[in-house]
Amino acid sequence: MNALQDYPVIYEQKVAWGDMDAFGHVNNVIYYRYIESARLCYLGRLNILNEDIYTVVASNQCQYFQPVLYPDCLKIGARVDELRNSAFRMHYSIWSEQLKDIVAVGEAVIVCVNKTDMKKTQIPHHIKDKIKALEKEIHHLI
Amino acid sequence: MNALQDYPVIYEQKVAWGDMDAFGHVNNVIYYRYIESARLCYLGRLNILNEDIYTVVASNQCQYFQPVLYPDCLKIGARVDELRNSAFRMHYSIWSEQLKDIVAVGEAVIVCVNKTDMKKTQIPHHIKDKIKALEKEIHHLI
Amino acid sequence: MNALQDYPVIYEQKVAWGDMDAFGHVNNVIYYRYIESARLCYLGRLNILNEDIYTVVASNQCQYFQPVLYPDCLKIGARVDELRNSAFRMHYSIWSEQLKDIVAVGEAVIVCVNKTDMKKTQIPHHIKDKIKALEKEIHHLI
Amino acid sequence: MNALQDYPVIYEQKVAWGDMDAFGHVNNVIYYRYIESARLCYLGRLNILNEDIYTVVASNQCQYFQPVLYPDCLKIGARVDELRNSAFRMHYSIWSEQLKDIVAVGEAVIVCVNKTDMKKTQIPHHIKDKIKALEKEIHHLI
Repeated sequence: MNALQDYPVIYEQKVAWGDMDAFGHVNNVIYYRYIESARLCYLGRLNILNEDIYTVVASNQCQYFQPVLYPDCLKIGARVDELRNSAFRMHYSIWSEQLKDIVAVGEAVIVCVNKTDMKKTQIPHHIKDKIKALEKEIHHLI
Repeated sequence: MNALQDYPVIYEQKVAWGDMDAFGHVNNVIYYRYIESARLCYLGRLNILNEDIYTVVASNQCQYFQPVLYPDCLKIGARVDELRNSAFRMHYSIWSEQLKDIVAVGEAVIVCVNKTDMKKTQIPHHIKDKIKALEKEIHHLI
Repeated sequence: MNALQDYPVIYEQKVAWGDMDAFGHVNNVIYYRYIESARLCYLGRLNILNEDIYTVVASNQCQYFQPVLYPDCLKIGARVDELRNSAFRMHYSIWSEQLKDIVAVGEAVIVCVNKTDMKKTQIPHHIKDKIKALEKEIHHLI
Repeated sequence: MNALQDYPVIYEQKVAWGDMDAFGHVNNVIYYRYIESARLCYLGRLNILNEDIYTVVASNQCQYFQPVLYPDCLKIGARVDELRNSAFRMHYSIWSEQLKDIVAVGEAVIVCVNKTDMKKTQIPHHIKDKIKALEKEIHHLI
């Protein structure tokens, strides 16, 4: 699990049998759901869901190294790699308990938009501070 | 629909109400399911599903330009951008009938693996030829 | 398609490859998504989504007669079987184009709740009238 | 949690943000995925997935008592209510940690089919014995 030591938030995700597709592996689409749950876990730590903003995914990507099968339990590390005015970039690593290895890595650019007009808006300062504090914790650990 | 004229395969995808998330838009994860369906439509044209190979997604990505809402009907263009020995790269454009605009673009690298040992294997020659023929059709049209 | 002649609304649903599970058939959970889409199609005919009510599923059920595989296109018949004060019962039949047969039947009890307090509320009279008119159409046809 | 004391298998299910729909509640379809995971957990205890049979859902149903929201953690009790020659009936209760209450109950009839010809087949005797033993454990507790 050293593989996830650079991630301030680690989300635990059980693989459901129904997450597998007709090839008998977890379907690639499902990884994005897993990653979303890890992101929400991170955002929960910021209390951002109570703000007057939505956090909208502007782009995301994923690289798959090894197939994942049921049963397994994944640990998903999430960290903010880049903080901009109204957006931030998150990085994810998915580690499999069965395979004892990183099975996929992903990234997402998240844009803050106003709940009322859905226009791009600045990340609130206290949220930025919380992100910095959360990320700093980790860099102290290393 | 000129926007999709460079794509030899166009898949029609109805938006389901249940594809929307708590923000009231189609959830970003669902776009990958839509794109998968467009890819399968392309692969069906190649008859590749009857071969002794699996087509496995090695990586994929998506950029979201505008939120999509129910009800809508999407047209998803799919084309092969790059043909390698045992992999190919596909590009996708998603066009919304409601918005009369491209709402997202995506990409995926697909690797051919052997059904029995799940090892990387060459794309069969007749499949390569079919891809080339399919892509050529379009370039004639332009 | 005589099998669906008693249904005033028929929704067309393409089967996605990703709807299949590791057994290689459309997963039973997905049928409820299909049925939801047929219901939304019916509700759309009533313009009920613009009312101050939510239509909440209180219970539902499904019987599966034959496995469905990709590729296929389903026709889902939806009708209201019973109209109560604040709820109605819908019946669904799923017909497969590949199998030329009914592959599943389902039912759902839908309760109208107030959007603000989520309490049970009466079905608006003009909505009831629209349901009756829609169902009558069919019985005239038979 | 006394509410689940009659269930020999209890499966823990975290609610994902993405499980909610545009009404802001966990979508009714998702409950069937949750229930499937609880069933697979039960079947795992029987080692049935290594047998030459598939366990196919012939019918299922669910009643929803209260809406579930993210974040929450559910406990799903699963038990076999009825053992037939080639089928068994399972009952499920879903308990919410947030609401400290049963939020839904469900049922499913599972049929054993032969992996090769997909025909109905008898439940193997040692599997029946395992089910009986598992259920007996609980009734001793009561």
